[in-house]
Amino acid sequence: MALTKTPVTGMKDIMPDEMEIRDYLISLIKETYKSFGFTPIETPAMESIQNLTAKQGGDNEKLIFKVMKRGEKLNLGKAQTADDLVDAGMRYDLTVPLVRFYSNHANDLPKPFKALQVGPVWRADRPQRGRFRQFYQCDIDILGEASNIAETELLLATTTVLGKIGFEGFKVHINDRRLLKAMASYAGFADEDHDAVFITLDKMDKIGADGVRAELSENGYDAAVIEKYLALFEAMNGADDRLAKVAEILGEENEKGAAAVRNLKEITAGVEACLSVPCELMLDPTLVRGMSYYTGTIFEVEIAGLASSCGGGGRYDEMVGKFTNMQTPAVGISLGFERLITILLEQGFRVPGAAEKTAILVDKKVAGEALTAVLKEAADLRAGGRTVLVAKMAKNKKFQKEQLAADGYEEIREVYAD
Amino acid sequence: MALTKTPVTGMKDIMPDEMEIRDYLISLIKETYKSFGFTPIETPAMESIQNLTAKQGGDNEKLIFKVMKRGEKLNLGKAQTADDLVDAGMRYDLTVPLVRFYSNHANDLPKPFKALQVGPVWRADRPQRGRFRQFYQCDIDILGEASNIAETELLLATTTVLGKIGFEGFKVHINDRRLLKAMASYAGFADEDHDAVFITLDKMDKIGADGVRAELSENGYDAAVIEKYLALFEAMNGADDRLAKVAEILGEENEKGAAAVRNLKEITAGVEACLSVPCELMLDPTLVRGMSYYTGTIFEVEIAGLASSCGGGGRYDEMVGKFTNMQTPAVGISLGFERLITILLEQGFRVPGAAEKTAILVDKKVAGEALTAVLKEAADLRAGGRTVLVAKMAKNKKFQKEQLAADGYEEIREVYAD
Repeated sequence: MALTKTPVTGMKDIMPDEMEIRDYLISLIKETYKSFGFTPIETPAMESIQNLTAKQGGDNEKLIFKVMKRGEKLNLGKAQTADDLVDAGMRYDLTVPLVRFYSNHANDLPKPFKALQVGPVWRADRPQRGRFRQFYQCDIDILGEASNIAETELLLATTTVLGKIGFEGFKVHINDRRLLKAMASYAGFADEDHDAVFITLDKMDKIGADGVRAELSENGYDAAVIEKYLALFEAMNGADDRLAKVAEILGEENEKGAAAVRNLKEITAGVEACLSVPCELMLDPTLVRGMSYYTGTIFEVEIAGLASSCGGGGRYDEMVGKFTNMQTPAVGISLGFERLITILLEQGFRVPGAAEKTAILVDKKVAGEALTAVLKEAADLRAGGRTVLVAKMAKNKKFQKEQLAADGYEEIREVYAD
Repeated sequence: MALTKTPVTGMKDIMPDEMEIRDYLISLIKETYKSFGFTPIETPAMESIQNLTAKQGGDNEKLIFKVMKRGEKLNLGKAQTADDLVDAGMRYDLTVPLVRFYSNHANDLPKPFKALQVGPVWRADRPQRGRFRQFYQCDIDILGEASNIAETELLLATTTVLGKIGFEGFKVHINDRRLLKAMASYAGFADEDHDAVFITLDKMDKIGADGVRAELSENGYDAAVIEKYLALFEAMNGADDRLAKVAEILGEENEKGAAAVRNLKEITAGVEACLSVPCELMLDPTLVRGMSYYTGTIFEVEIAGLASSCGGGGRYDEMVGKFTNMQTPAVGISLGFERLITILLEQGFRVPGAAEKTAILVDKKVAGEALTAVLKEAADLRAGGRTVLVAKMAKNKKFQKEQLAADGYEEIREVYAD
């Protein structure tokens, strides 16, 4: 009756060394976000399956771990599909649970409500190196604040956290779904084609302007429209001030475009003025962000010298209303917690201010009052702030001491009977 | 397409007020346990279903939330039972995952290995007031330490944590499965009847000696044996020093009984000598603890004035070996985390050292440089250790301020455009 020793497929055990960094990071993040007035909440790991399959999760809805019904005896004969046996699933993000939480408790929550969530989510992705089927997300969201003070606070809080961890030089890629749409309309794309066009635009990083041109052309769009669209991006890339440039091209009469530009200018000015750590906010006209629920500002945070983004989010003013009939503006940012942990592990990060460690190895003949004296001394040392481990001396004492030294015990005492 | 607003049956949302206490408690617990040399680990929320149904979980195995297989298309026609559709389940405790973790990583772990785990577990119990289907457990375990230094350290660590939370006056009920067995043998029960006898003995609290007598008699045991057994407990209850009394009755030649008494004496002396907080260790000869995997010392921790126990555990020297063929002594204690939270909430507990809070309400006409100045001031205040919330002034300013005051914002400023 031997156990399966390994974790379930695609999930991982977390060892003490990594846990120390994770615990440190979580408390640093929570403490910093709390100083911005965010308050922590927690929802169950499971949500009812209807909530998880309500078309707000995009492709993540294909990756749900489903939990079997409890209580009634399951009737396999009557079940038409596996879904008849299921009434809950593991959450695939923290946004759907937040919206449910908010709709359940809105009367008891302040307005605006600044939510802070740190916790695991589950996605049955194809297992691959460095990506796991259970991983932590770390989200802050502001519900009930329509003004861009919300975006500014989110970005300030996030860059402050990253600065406190010890990172330097951030780049915030910022855009606005309304600007994306104004630009597409200006070029001549019909409203109903926008989402499809943005899926192609999102690939600009990888396939370049020529690739985007080819794909849009393949999808049947008019060549003149495509050229006008691409010329817009080229003009912006060449400009010192992209926001000024796009405002100039679209013109003041383009109200939605002008509103988006104003929005981005205000956020940029607010964030750049308040940062203690250098941070560049940059209009990225090709930033799309996958989820279709975004309605306004969208952003991604990049740390200088690290390839991928380590956080992102945006405004989703319609999601709460769609789910609950309570119109509530909302904006959130998700920190790439696992990405940050990976980076810190690669950099050999050491948690600052860790306690000094003493190990007291007790010979097996030490007993009674002599042993009590050892335990008492250990208690005194702990009261003074040290980490103290008391253990029986092993037969292979040399190996035991080597292991302890490797675990950071810089002082190792041996106690023998008189 | 409205969302289900409530959490899944039997689970709960955690509101900011409670979360603040939970976060505080978790970090206090972790910090204190770490000072004893315990190191945090984490395992996935799911375990393979074989590991969860290996008869180590007692009745908890009936309460497993089962997770459906992923990957292959599920074939309902071929499935004989619901279990054919399942390959994992939600963990119902932290002990089975720990044993799996240890067997997977033993070569990379120090000996003894002192594990610290805090995290949710899931049990599909009948929903009832105050008990939830997702709840936190908080365990420390020592693997690879055969001596009772391990028990002593576990009890010292746990009472130290409880003292730091602010509780006073602990009672540790302590017993030893070997003493339980020695007493049952002394009375004349056959070895194979011991577990059944202990199930009855465990009810002494509720049904008293007469109830125990009746139930044992009903189960067909000899009246003389029952009377000799009950006389033992009566003699111990009347004694000043129960350990001395039982040692005297069983006699030195009863080796297992004598070893158990010695063990309990050593632990009692060690713990009582080192505590800064008053704590009474008391042999409780009727303490059984449900799980059959315990092999030696067992204990429960009680806080004076609170009805139920708030922690318990014991030695389980055979479980790791049974699962993995690596004989490894082990002992652990589980703190009643949810019980402690309930008590603290009832007592109106306030987290000590919380930051002072300032709210800055900004009139809608404040924009541009004036708004930036506000954000800058907020950043400065935060750098000085305050919690600062910046928000647009609501139309109903009076209500907004009342809510903020209720949330602990003792300073509320209003900023208007010049």
